Amino acid sequence: MTLQLYYAPGACSFVPHALLEIAGVPFEPKLVKLHKGEQSSPEYLALNARGQVPVLVDDGAVITQIVAIVNYINDKYAGGKFLPTDPLEKAKALELLAWFNNSVHPTFTHVFMPHKFSADKNTHTELQSFNTALFRGQLTEIDALCAKAQPWIGGADIGPLDLYALTLMRWGGFVGLDPKGWAHLWPHANKVAQHPAVAKAVAREKLDLDVKPVKA
Amino acid sequence: MTLQLYYAPGACSFVPHALLEIAGVPFEPKLVKLHKGEQSSPEYLALNARGQVPVLVDDGAVITQIVAIVNYINDKYAGGKFLPTDPLEKAKALELLAWFNNSVHPTFTHVFMPHKFSADKNTHTELQSFNTALFRGQLTEIDALCAKAQPWIGGADIGPLDLYALTLMRWGGFVGLDPKGWAHLWPHANKVAQHPAVAKAVAREKLDLDVKPVKA
Repeated sequence: MTLQLYYAPGACSFVPHALLEIAGVPFEPKLVKLHKGEQSSPEYLALNARGQVPVLVDDGAVITQIVAIVNYINDKYAGGKFLPTDPLEKAKALELLAWFNNSVHPTFTHVFMPHKFSADKNTHTELQSFNTALFRGQLTEIDALCAKAQPWIGGADIGPLDLYALTLMRWGGFVGLDPKGWAHLWPHANKVAQHPAVAKAVAREKLDLDVKPVKA
Repeated sequence: MTLQLYYAPGACSFVPHALLEIAGVPFEPKLVKLHKGEQSSPEYLALNARGQVPVLVDDGAVITQIVAIVNYINDKYAGGKFLPTDPLEKAKALELLAWFNNSVHPTFTHVFMPHKFSADKNTHTELQSFNTALFRGQLTEIDALCAKAQPWIGGADIGPLDLYALTLMRWGGFVGLDPKGWAHLWPHANKVAQHPAVAKAVAREKLDLDVKPVKA
């Protein structure tokens, strides 16, 4: 099989994972066990020197970065149905995708992995509390996006924004932002997870949407 | 004029600013004076609630986020010449653009505006020193990209990666990473700045490439 996706359960690799299922393209899911440090093995670092998931390998060509992988799957394997074709509508979808990716996602990283931003453990508690508050505000914005989804965040078709929103909502659960507390995001994420193709990725990753806080 | 670009001198808005000049599309440059707080005025926040540049307005439609604006200019005004058309080559360009945007750029933000990540001033010095070291490593990677540019980072045509690289190099200067110290990035940025269309944006923003550290 030429197409392989390296993913970790519940990581942002869920976005391309579910997109590949929706596109109906055959691929080989390659589980990376983050808790066992497999992303830091010499084999994995040879694939992606940053030691991150997702990585998409297509006939030997390696692609990293959600934004790039989403565009690639859209262009090559989904007949363009994951992003609008009209330039303005496409720009508005990419605007949200970029914001999810460059702002909301790293805000969570500050809470979950503060050592990525500071070597002084004394600063970590402050980084975590400040960024948890920021993350709450960002999820509130995503909740508002779900309120006006018709029926999906990007419009008529389910796409990367819906999958990323589900992922970010789950992450909130890890840091005490109760997924069930979101009036619109919670039912939207459930609708996303119940989409028949998405459900295959959810099952493979064994994801529960109602994520509880991690004990310190 | 239907097309307007809100920019601030030396900010990442330089990327779309120069792209519009290269594309040769008429646009109205709208200077946002960050040091006067214009990005926080009610008028500006009505345009972009996040109070950031760049903002591209096309016949009343508002687009934010570098990744989205670059794609929009490429699709609508540049005949696709700012990003490769082959899906894999395009994905590799977007992979770098996303990394510049979601990793290198915010690393600098931690040094320049640590208050965006922590309310406790006692943590700011540590955030700054840790992220300056990180930024140095990231600019070293960009220096290596410039070493193999043929002749531009994205290949045959000058594009967003070259303009972003120039911008990030200048930012390094503000925090003590001497632009002239980069064996490949420094000459590459000079070549970019001397491109006739880019030079118009450089002149409008009054940019000097040899940026000196800001006095504390």
